[in-house]
Amino acid sequence: MAASEQSANKQYGGWNRRYKHESEVLGCSMTFTVYYPPAAEKGSVPVLYYLSGLTCDDQNFITKANAQRKASELGIALISPDTSPRANVPGEDDAMEVGSAAGFYLNATEGKWKQNYQMYDYIVKELPSVLSGLKGLNTQKASIMGHSMGGHGALVIGLRNPDKYAAISAFAPIANPSEAPMGSTALKAYLGDDKSHWKQYDATEIAKSYSGPGKKILIDQGTSDNFWKENLKPENFKNAAPKQLSVELRLQDGYDHSYFTMSTFIDDHVAFHAAQL
Amino acid sequence: MAASEQSANKQYGGWNRRYKHESEVLGCSMTFTVYYPPAAEKGSVPVLYYLSGLTCDDQNFITKANAQRKASELGIALISPDTSPRANVPGEDDAMEVGSAAGFYLNATEGKWKQNYQMYDYIVKELPSVLSGLKGLNTQKASIMGHSMGGHGALVIGLRNPDKYAAISAFAPIANPSEAPMGSTALKAYLGDDKSHWKQYDATEIAKSYSGPGKKILIDQGTSDNFWKENLKPENFKNAAPKQLSVELRLQDGYDHSYFTMSTFIDDHVAFHAAQL
Repeated sequence: MAASEQSANKQYGGWNRRYKHESEVLGCSMTFTVYYPPAAEKGSVPVLYYLSGLTCDDQNFITKANAQRKASELGIALISPDTSPRANVPGEDDAMEVGSAAGFYLNATEGKWKQNYQMYDYIVKELPSVLSGLKGLNTQKASIMGHSMGGHGALVIGLRNPDKYAAISAFAPIANPSEAPMGSTALKAYLGDDKSHWKQYDATEIAKSYSGPGKKILIDQGTSDNFWKENLKPENFKNAAPKQLSVELRLQDGYDHSYFTMSTFIDDHVAFHAAQL
Repeated sequence: MAASEQSANKQYGGWNRRYKHESEVLGCSMTFTVYYPPAAEKGSVPVLYYLSGLTCDDQNFITKANAQRKASELGIALISPDTSPRANVPGEDDAMEVGSAAGFYLNATEGKWKQNYQMYDYIVKELPSVLSGLKGLNTQKASIMGHSMGGHGALVIGLRNPDKYAAISAFAPIANPSEAPMGSTALKAYLGDDKSHWKQYDATEIAKSYSGPGKKILIDQGTSDNFWKENLKPENFKNAAPKQLSVELRLQDGYDHSYFTMSTFIDDHVAFHAAQL
């Protein structure tokens, strides 16, 4: 279904436009925001997807990360989707790791989740189709990044669809969810007890058997991030990656899990994607 | 009373530190945030006060304006106070223009407000004293800016204390509150019906009789700001200013009242103050 514009705010010469549309894949209304750089007024620009973390919606990245400054300069659109269906599934607000704002960018197969919680298909298939109906966006030239749960989403989606996304980057990604408490809780709820079904949504497991084309991956991890050692494990991902995946894992001294870290290094990420697009 | 640190987040090599202290002037606990640039670790740096607008607290500017990037580069600390006492005055949450998050940076003289709502004295006297107890800040070198209600605060406080603040800047300031619906509502509630008492807190009225030293003033006003014509009136201020007040009023085409506008032009403001400090 076509997206209808809900609001527009000018920034750095371009526009943040928030849209609402009916998602067939998710069975509910969904909201997302696009930042259009000034260059989008004269032609179609590449798109950089940003997948947000637990508890977020489409606005956190748009209001706090300040990625628009570099995106304006380099002529890239930023695509900020929501983090889960908003389908009023009973109990979806009960836990931080499962349910609303915790869609984990996967296709659920279990119980009450399987009807609506199909965020993998939403991000990979339906959202690009909706975006292709908007002016100024070249959805054939795409790249993907994310934060925390969204870093997990970016790695999984990027590696499983290497021809769709030019590059991958992440801040503090949940990079090996099968081996981490929060990730395991989510994977179990959405995919069931059989861990063999979890591998398709675990970036470290995907990396182990990756046989696709070469791909550059940039990861920033703050050393004062309380989630780092127990729940994120980006080192596991780097160690598992075959040589055609060029993984740069940067440890940022004293930085935490917040958007203050992201704003500090976001210019590097936007420029990294621009160089691959 | 000394300030105690509540949280610390690293950004652009410096630190956002949030503090709590008991305010004698306001008769309640108050929270404020300081951004320390990296230079504050090696010596004392000048301070730039930022006064926020209606409905805000100390966090809006810190999380959304992205002033820290330029402040880090130029070696200036950012001081972001709260917008009102938090003293549980009965009914203080009932109106947007009066009460909590709407202190209007004045000393109230009326009714239930006069005991706590003394934000002018808090910003001009008590807060600098509290800051002088923190390491790395040179509170003798200060400048002041603000947004909307906080733009009003910056103009009023800056012009009434020209020796304390090197320069003044504002985004979309309530620049002539006596002649505007929202400003009048607030001034009447805090200062009473006699409009002669309002002049000391109306930047346009202060400008008319200003006889102090020369002062540079930078104002950005978005042309798509819904509050502009009826409630802000920066043109009245510019027209009233005597020649020793060098007022640059920039109309920004298509920009609105939000922090998206502020982030777009914040580098200019931080650099403007740095040049005067």
